[in-house]
Amino acid sequence: MSETYSYLGPSGTFTEAALAQVPEAQGKEWHSVNNVGEALDDVVSGRSVAAMIAIENSIEGGVSATQDALANIPGLRIVGEYLVKVQFVLVARPGTTLDDVRVVNAHPVAYAQTRKWLDVNLPAHGHIPSTSNVAAALSLFENDLADAAVAPPQIVQHHALEVLAENISDNANAVTRFVLVSRNTVLPPATGADKTSIIAELPDDRSGALLELLEQFSTRGVNLSLLQSRPIGDALGRYRFVIDADGHITDERVADALLGVRRFSPNIIFLGSYPRADRAPVEYVPRYDNGVFVEARDWLRALVSGEPES
Amino acid sequence: MSETYSYLGPSGTFTEAALAQVPEAQGKEWHSVNNVGEALDDVVSGRSVAAMIAIENSIEGGVSATQDALANIPGLRIVGEYLVKVQFVLVARPGTTLDDVRVVNAHPVAYAQTRKWLDVNLPAHGHIPSTSNVAAALSLFENDLADAAVAPPQIVQHHALEVLAENISDNANAVTRFVLVSRNTVLPPATGADKTSIIAELPDDRSGALLELLEQFSTRGVNLSLLQSRPIGDALGRYRFVIDADGHITDERVADALLGVRRFSPNIIFLGSYPRADRAPVEYVPRYDNGVFVEARDWLRALVSGEPES
Amino acid sequence: MSETYSYLGPSGTFTEAALAQVPEAQGKEWHSVNNVGEALDDVVSGRSVAAMIAIENSIEGGVSATQDALANIPGLRIVGEYLVKVQFVLVARPGTTLDDVRVVNAHPVAYAQTRKWLDVNLPAHGHIPSTSNVAAALSLFENDLADAAVAPPQIVQHHALEVLAENISDNANAVTRFVLVSRNTVLPPATGADKTSIIAELPDDRSGALLELLEQFSTRGVNLSLLQSRPIGDALGRYRFVIDADGHITDERVADALLGVRRFSPNIIFLGSYPRADRAPVEYVPRYDNGVFVEARDWLRALVSGEPES
Amino acid sequence: MSETYSYLGPSGTFTEAALAQVPEAQGKEWHSVNNVGEALDDVVSGRSVAAMIAIENSIEGGVSATQDALANIPGLRIVGEYLVKVQFVLVARPGTTLDDVRVVNAHPVAYAQTRKWLDVNLPAHGHIPSTSNVAAALSLFENDLADAAVAPPQIVQHHALEVLAENISDNANAVTRFVLVSRNTVLPPATGADKTSIIAELPDDRSGALLELLEQFSTRGVNLSLLQSRPIGDALGRYRFVIDADGHITDERVADALLGVRRFSPNIIFLGSYPRADRAPVEYVPRYDNGVFVEARDWLRALVSGEPES
Repeated sequence: MSETYSYLGPSGTFTEAALAQVPEAQGKEWHSVNNVGEALDDVVSGRSVAAMIAIENSIEGGVSATQDALANIPGLRIVGEYLVKVQFVLVARPGTTLDDVRVVNAHPVAYAQTRKWLDVNLPAHGHIPSTSNVAAALSLFENDLADAAVAPPQIVQHHALEVLAENISDNANAVTRFVLVSRNTVLPPATGADKTSIIAELPDDRSGALLELLEQFSTRGVNLSLLQSRPIGDALGRYRFVIDADGHITDERVADALLGVRRFSPNIIFLGSYPRADRAPVEYVPRYDNGVFVEARDWLRALVSGEPES
Repeated sequence: MSETYSYLGPSGTFTEAALAQVPEAQGKEWHSVNNVGEALDDVVSGRSVAAMIAIENSIEGGVSATQDALANIPGLRIVGEYLVKVQFVLVARPGTTLDDVRVVNAHPVAYAQTRKWLDVNLPAHGHIPSTSNVAAALSLFENDLADAAVAPPQIVQHHALEVLAENISDNANAVTRFVLVSRNTVLPPATGADKTSIIAELPDDRSGALLELLEQFSTRGVNLSLLQSRPIGDALGRYRFVIDADGHITDERVADALLGVRRFSPNIIFLGSYPRADRAPVEYVPRYDNGVFVEARDWLRALVSGEPES
Repeated sequence: MSETYSYLGPSGTFTEAALAQVPEAQGKEWHSVNNVGEALDDVVSGRSVAAMIAIENSIEGGVSATQDALANIPGLRIVGEYLVKVQFVLVARPGTTLDDVRVVNAHPVAYAQTRKWLDVNLPAHGHIPSTSNVAAALSLFENDLADAAVAPPQIVQHHALEVLAENISDNANAVTRFVLVSRNTVLPPATGADKTSIIAELPDDRSGALLELLEQFSTRGVNLSLLQSRPIGDALGRYRFVIDADGHITDERVADALLGVRRFSPNIIFLGSYPRADRAPVEYVPRYDNGVFVEARDWLRALVSGEPES
Repeated sequence: MSETYSYLGPSGTFTEAALAQVPEAQGKEWHSVNNVGEALDDVVSGRSVAAMIAIENSIEGGVSATQDALANIPGLRIVGEYLVKVQFVLVARPGTTLDDVRVVNAHPVAYAQTRKWLDVNLPAHGHIPSTSNVAAALSLFENDLADAAVAPPQIVQHHALEVLAENISDNANAVTRFVLVSRNTVLPPATGADKTSIIAELPDDRSGALLELLEQFSTRGVNLSLLQSRPIGDALGRYRFVIDADGHITDERVADALLGVRRFSPNIIFLGSYPRADRAPVEYVPRYDNGVFVEARDWLRALVSGEPES
């Protein structure tokens, strides 16, 4: 199989910074793509062994394109999670000063996250949108429609640009969560600090359906770190839910909750169990320990088989 | 093993009428006992193969002595359920008329259930309590402290008593539910019209514990036909719950609910799965059908084993 | 109005011991009655200002007669709660020794609670049931059918009986909870250590109805100290629930929960708000403080009236 | 006050089509703006009496910029809801044929919704993103970087463009939901077919918090038509929820649910009660009718005031 890793490029993107955190990817070929769709196409077709894609941003929320692609493309698995601190710099062609800047090129998301700084420091600026953070910077070499660009700090390691201002994000703690996606259905082993991701639809026939979905987790002592709705797309108001649950599918309480969701939901997609980026051990009450599940099954089995209770 | 059946006697009791409904008991030895404790002692010691005991009355509610005995004596199983319509007659020694009646002998429960009739028809009557409905009638032969007794209609088949009045119950629809209890841990086969009985304690450490116990059933689509609290006995306000759930322990949804209760409860007692007295098939939504549980387990197993999703 | 207090007599009962705890009853007339029905009749008719009745026993559970009477007799209110430690002695006519005892007279509940002691110390004893604990003792003066009686310790303050054995209860911590019942609908003021009692039926048309009833309390942060089912009496399996909730009806969270139950339940009976016997302050999280309710109402009122939000 | 209405322009946008549905806006001044922020600035500053903004798309889901703006700008109210069917045409400068098209200008959302058609019919096309659907069309007059544009059908009523292809959306049923936002805090009257919108944060200190939030609605019989999470923005995994509930704030069950959420949530924003776009009457069970709430309050008030129960 190919040893290529796909990522949203080109060099200098936050996605590249996420991929740089993956030990297995070191020394392998990295394939720069233009969007999430291309990255997952590489994985599905076998051109790449895995793809790094953004899934959640502390400012913008869930990345819709990623969540929808994972819901619609069968056979994909999340095998790892990575966090990248999101910071921006304002860059320009060498020789440009801040006073020279009339028009700024920026990806709409980056623009939104630096808008306050730009409004204060460049109150009369115009905005040209670009398709990515790096494309914004590179546009400065292609034409002179813009005088500066909002870009990731690492851009200057790859291109001859000058930094006019650093740390221009409105929120100093912004972070983006990335996931490494592959077709490999062999599960990463449980580490005690894992996350399990699914996408589930609700049954149509009942109000209170979301409550019942959530009870499938709460009655097994499984905490959720993410619950996001995404439109199914066939009609207004029809939503599926993207869920991150604490724990690994081989943890008994998680497995039992997944069984409950499988029975309840008309459509559930298992996206994977994988180590959490922050390596924080999953906390749960002893009542939901693996041994408790095993003991309960033994008890039930003895009852059904007609053994006298001990 | 003994082929004896124990019941609250003597001849003429409602309990005997319940035992008469059991095909396996026909032609076997019937052992009359004085109370629930003796009946269950017969079963535990092996002197009897089974005992018929009252467990719930439509007027009086759960029979505490039975519920507490089932909670405290290990190794007992309910293997059948039977309903007996509860009606009373006023009986007297031959030659007595209603006008002669000054004092009435009656078991306290029977007395409570015929009190309105007695107050209207014998406004000046006195009451002597007896330990059972039949004992009330038999006391008329032992001494003349009472002039009449409240007794089951079938009493006159066994004893030379005259009926002064029939249908004297305040509630014409009163019915008592009996259970046949044995030490046989081999489960009666599922019939599609079954009931599963358990007794469960709540964890101490949380308010909302009863809510969580009930959710173990509701999230599997299992309906409860009985939920009764009984004191554990060690302190005021500490209760266990007597629960009848629709379905058989070999029904997947019931088995899964029992697993949930086993994990949740610090103490669960399985009392048995057995055919309902009314033979009404258990109703449930298709989402909780056996096949759905089997399919979900197959799905989970494939995921954990690393098979590609089909 | 009469200043009489009714209680289950005669002198020497646990009920009398409970009434002795009521400051307002000191120096007033105490009327001894034979059962709960007579006691409540005294209140309803105005012959007594209040009646002391047992409502829960740590061994036997809820007192059915009391719970059913409160459900069926309109206009009654619980105005106070009292605890009495339940202990028993074995008494006999002067000159009797333990070796002389062949037959024991005892109220069935007292008999059940001293059965282990009796079986060990008087293995061959017979049992004659009586209608009350004091009646058991007094029967020794009326006839010689029994040689000893199970009675409350205070019996010897009133009658010339000898104690053959003390502390013969199987459970040393047994306690009975009594309530003082009146027709006075003026509420005792909130003390911060109160209890609110209601009886509520469930709607017929839905499984999960009990879950919804409990949520009316849990969503307002109100803890329940008692939840007991009692048959409504018209058909097997139809139950009402006797509920004790922490707090006073004038506590905002309790009032709001009662509104929810009133809307949900086809039949709710308010039995009263009154100080807890143990005087333990009610604990609740600050989110459910009175001020939070007042603030929320002010917020809503401003929204509805069209005021700009401040 | 100004009689101006702001909308995402210029002429020809779907937003303009939504504003055309507002009777009160007919004959008034319409102010075309470039984004949601400008539209709401007009309202906040008083330059406009109201602004029409997109809030949910059947394909893309909630419009993040709108949801976040409503969460962060105080004093705004939704006063109406409008639906616009989303269809796209491919337009070009007069004389252009489909074979001539090499590069397509399109807003990223429109591009995503027509991607399948474009890939089939123009497999080698390039894409230039624009800031709006109309801007995409107008760019054809400004430069020749693109040969065609994806635009709303109504664009040809305003500009001299030729339609190369109609109905090029991948989903024929796509619809966008718009809301009319003003500073007017006087509520539109209840119509029986209303919607109430809020944004609420969850308390930090408990798992199961979302379950409790949802129970505030379910225990009052209030159905939710929208539940969407949006990041609060201060840390990964911290979310607020955008909620549309069936009914009007002056409906008793909605008011009571809002009180519950106000008490539960550390931060709730009321966005308004307004007629539903589809004019479908709100359905609810009789148990949650206005009269039931009024009756319950009367009942409680009588209890607290000490009146005897009638």
